[in-house]
Amino acid sequence: MAKIIDITELCLRDAHQSLLATRMAFEDMVPACADIDQAGYWSVECWGGATFDACIRFLNEDPWERLRKFRQLLPNSRLQMLLRGQNLLGYRHYEDSVVDRFVDKAASNGMDVFRVFDALNDIRNIRHSVNAVRRNGKHAQGTICYTISPLHTTETFIDMAEQLVELGCDSICLKDMAALLKPQPAYDIVKGIKQRCGDSVRIHVHTHATTGVTLVSLMKAIEAGADGVDTAISSLSLGPGHNPTESLVEMLEGTGYEARLNKDCLRRIKNHFSTIRPRYQAFMSNIHGVETDIFDSQIPGGMISNMESQLKQQKAEDRLEEVMIEVPRVREDAGFPPLVTPSSQIVGTQAVFNVLMGRYKVMSNEFADLMLGYYGKAPGERDPAVLALATQHAHKEAITERPADLLHPEWDNLQTAAMALPGNDGSEEDVLTYAMFPQVAAAFFETRELGPKNLGVDPQAAAVKTSQPGVEPSAPRTPVTYDVKLNGRSHRVSVTPISE
Amino acid sequence: MAKIIDITELCLRDAHQSLLATRMAFEDMVPACADIDQAGYWSVECWGGATFDACIRFLNEDPWERLRKFRQLLPNSRLQMLLRGQNLLGYRHYEDSVVDRFVDKAASNGMDVFRVFDALNDIRNIRHSVNAVRRNGKHAQGTICYTISPLHTTETFIDMAEQLVELGCDSICLKDMAALLKPQPAYDIVKGIKQRCGDSVRIHVHTHATTGVTLVSLMKAIEAGADGVDTAISSLSLGPGHNPTESLVEMLEGTGYEARLNKDCLRRIKNHFSTIRPRYQAFMSNIHGVETDIFDSQIPGGMISNMESQLKQQKAEDRLEEVMIEVPRVREDAGFPPLVTPSSQIVGTQAVFNVLMGRYKVMSNEFADLMLGYYGKAPGERDPAVLALATQHAHKEAITERPADLLHPEWDNLQTAAMALPGNDGSEEDVLTYAMFPQVAAAFFETRELGPKNLGVDPQAAAVKTSQPGVEPSAPRTPVTYDVKLNGRSHRVSVTPISE
Repeated sequence: MAKIIDITELCLRDAHQSLLATRMAFEDMVPACADIDQAGYWSVECWGGATFDACIRFLNEDPWERLRKFRQLLPNSRLQMLLRGQNLLGYRHYEDSVVDRFVDKAASNGMDVFRVFDALNDIRNIRHSVNAVRRNGKHAQGTICYTISPLHTTETFIDMAEQLVELGCDSICLKDMAALLKPQPAYDIVKGIKQRCGDSVRIHVHTHATTGVTLVSLMKAIEAGADGVDTAISSLSLGPGHNPTESLVEMLEGTGYEARLNKDCLRRIKNHFSTIRPRYQAFMSNIHGVETDIFDSQIPGGMISNMESQLKQQKAEDRLEEVMIEVPRVREDAGFPPLVTPSSQIVGTQAVFNVLMGRYKVMSNEFADLMLGYYGKAPGERDPAVLALATQHAHKEAITERPADLLHPEWDNLQTAAMALPGNDGSEEDVLTYAMFPQVAAAFFETRELGPKNLGVDPQAAAVKTSQPGVEPSAPRTPVTYDVKLNGRSHRVSVTPISE
Repeated sequence: MAKIIDITELCLRDAHQSLLATRMAFEDMVPACADIDQAGYWSVECWGGATFDACIRFLNEDPWERLRKFRQLLPNSRLQMLLRGQNLLGYRHYEDSVVDRFVDKAASNGMDVFRVFDALNDIRNIRHSVNAVRRNGKHAQGTICYTISPLHTTETFIDMAEQLVELGCDSICLKDMAALLKPQPAYDIVKGIKQRCGDSVRIHVHTHATTGVTLVSLMKAIEAGADGVDTAISSLSLGPGHNPTESLVEMLEGTGYEARLNKDCLRRIKNHFSTIRPRYQAFMSNIHGVETDIFDSQIPGGMISNMESQLKQQKAEDRLEEVMIEVPRVREDAGFPPLVTPSSQIVGTQAVFNVLMGRYKVMSNEFADLMLGYYGKAPGERDPAVLALATQHAHKEAITERPADLLHPEWDNLQTAAMALPGNDGSEEDVLTYAMFPQVAAAFFETRELGPKNLGVDPQAAAVKTSQPGVEPSAPRTPVTYDVKLNGRSHRVSVTPISE
């Protein structure tokens, strides 16, 4: 008897986020849902920060309504979402009661599996969300962000898995958002977790395809005992996206493992999205094939294109190489955070500042907060001199407690503010939408009744092209423009977050 | 100490054959040669049937001169070629003295490693070439064409490897030209060969990337003891091409295996071809991403697009599905030949005939020859009724001897004919060029003095686009038009070989 490997299908969330800048209209997903529901997936990922943001920012679509429709269209499937721990789907820390209400509402609208992560792998930022998920009787998947640094050893990842199990997580996800997970570490980490925490602990592995090696990593993870892996239907796979579902299925033949999926369903899902994908040409990632340079720089591809864009705005494109050398130094100063939203853009932007204006002559508020512990605990020691500069810059002390513990109850204020917005429908969901993306939500409430836009229907009419060519398009962005004064000279610096 | 895995780089032959219809100009390869020579490859594949054909057909370039220049530009590298056994670089069987002269000349012009295969895996069609290579003191790599059929078991491939070792081959190549080799068979076959023939027998594995699973297959082959694998630099990889060299290198980190290549060289080679590739847009394969349907149909992608094109010419595009169902039946009737040049187009064309005009109502001469043993011994039993029809069609009997044994000495005739052509330079190389591609050679000799064309320099000027959209462009073709009469009605059927 072959061991069944559980598959999470990514085509409704991370796949089009990574390949089509999260722009796929809901109506372009509907025709595939019956087959997705029947294919035999363990779960169907269909919701997360970027898709939520894109719904209200670009598609004039209510993300909660999208979730409810998925629930109807996929009655036999576990619906899965990606949750940024205490950040929920936004970019700041939320007070615990907001976390509770968000998870309650996601669950009551149909979500089954919550994959919860924190950019710093700070378990304290994950705990409250996990508890909320369990209180709702849903599946809490505690997540380890995989990264490479002198501090991130196989042991540290196994330690974190143990903490997640102790937290009561129903399963563990090893999440490789930058395609850095090579076959041997994949094997060692999964094997180590199983040995430390027991064979009954479910492990799911998420990888991207960018570097070309991660299907091999999935094979080795499976050999080490992984219970589930993430893939995307082939017509929405590869490049900065994920490994193809069909290839995973075929790969396992005769190995003693089996992904028991219905090939006829897979073929129809593939054919559907192969007709849909070209309509979104305007939003397509410009990364094709594979890119292995990131193994050396350890800087994710999206972060590089983001820094390129910042430099371009400063007419300093020629200084990218200096910035690339500066990034690992800044990362080390900050105690080696994994480079994922929001730490990736905070570190990247500071590296740009350092190169353009001298090392830490100018510090972003976000970088000061990162240094001072306001995003959570860094994996390693922070540089004392830079820490002192951060204290000076921010006029506040470093903290060691969980960041959300410093927040005051905020639900009533959020509710009052949301209810005051024209077009608000009075629901708790609308308050949460406002809490996640205040400005975008306000604009969306006003236009909601016009109904969803399909940017793929007429590519010519899809005027909203990805803002700059060469910029990582896998997520919606909220550009923040800083007016930075240095030696009396004013610099206009625009910072655009890249989102996971 | 990690075991070193030897890498054969494909960028100068199979990579651009598979991705750019073999059109890359020599001058576009020159700037990469110094780095290719220094990167640490075991060998550099740079010559074969399609590149030879494309040189004289499209590029007005002398393929022998190309070989001599490669020899100069890659002084530290083993140059490698693909040789179709008794077919050499052409589509018919050559008499042994032609084989001898061809191999002698390839060796004296600089070739080091000869990968010798036969479409039917008939060892008798390989033997003479292997002997000629060994007589020249060069490396003879005996090749097993991997395919899937009820008759092609792990054991049959191991048996063939044993025969190749007995023949005196210096190494064995397991050649997966259609990306059908899954991880477990890759492991089992390599392991089995090592167990049967001894650990000292060198095994190289060649795969294409089309189905998305074959980098995993290379990993499993390496774990089973494979000594070398084929890859292509990332900017000329994937799709119908091959797995990326850089990904293979990274994949092995920490596994106990190591491809000791110079990453700086790889990066420069990658960067060079990433600027060259877009110039050949007009010739690019229209296959992107992965395609796993071929595991079910067992019909290679190139063969499908070829049949599509034949059906289109007959205004019968709607009958492709019938043809797809007919192909396995025709293949079974013929004793399950692997589907590779020339058997793929012979079987495919007959399947088209069967669907359009009734089963075996019309038989191509080539299919009759295949049935009657004139291409070699089929792997399995042929259908007696179809065999009888073939005898009737061809007015000749089935043979059991080696096809080339029926040929009369032909060198003098070839020489006389070649020397009579305007522009012939009197060399033995020119006779061989003529022997391979008589008509194309005649035209080439006349225009040779004008010098090579670069179809990539000005894409607008590159008028010679791949003939039909949707047609497998990985090889030059010699279309043959048949006038087929059936029940008094005349059908014009054009058959275009797809080449390996």
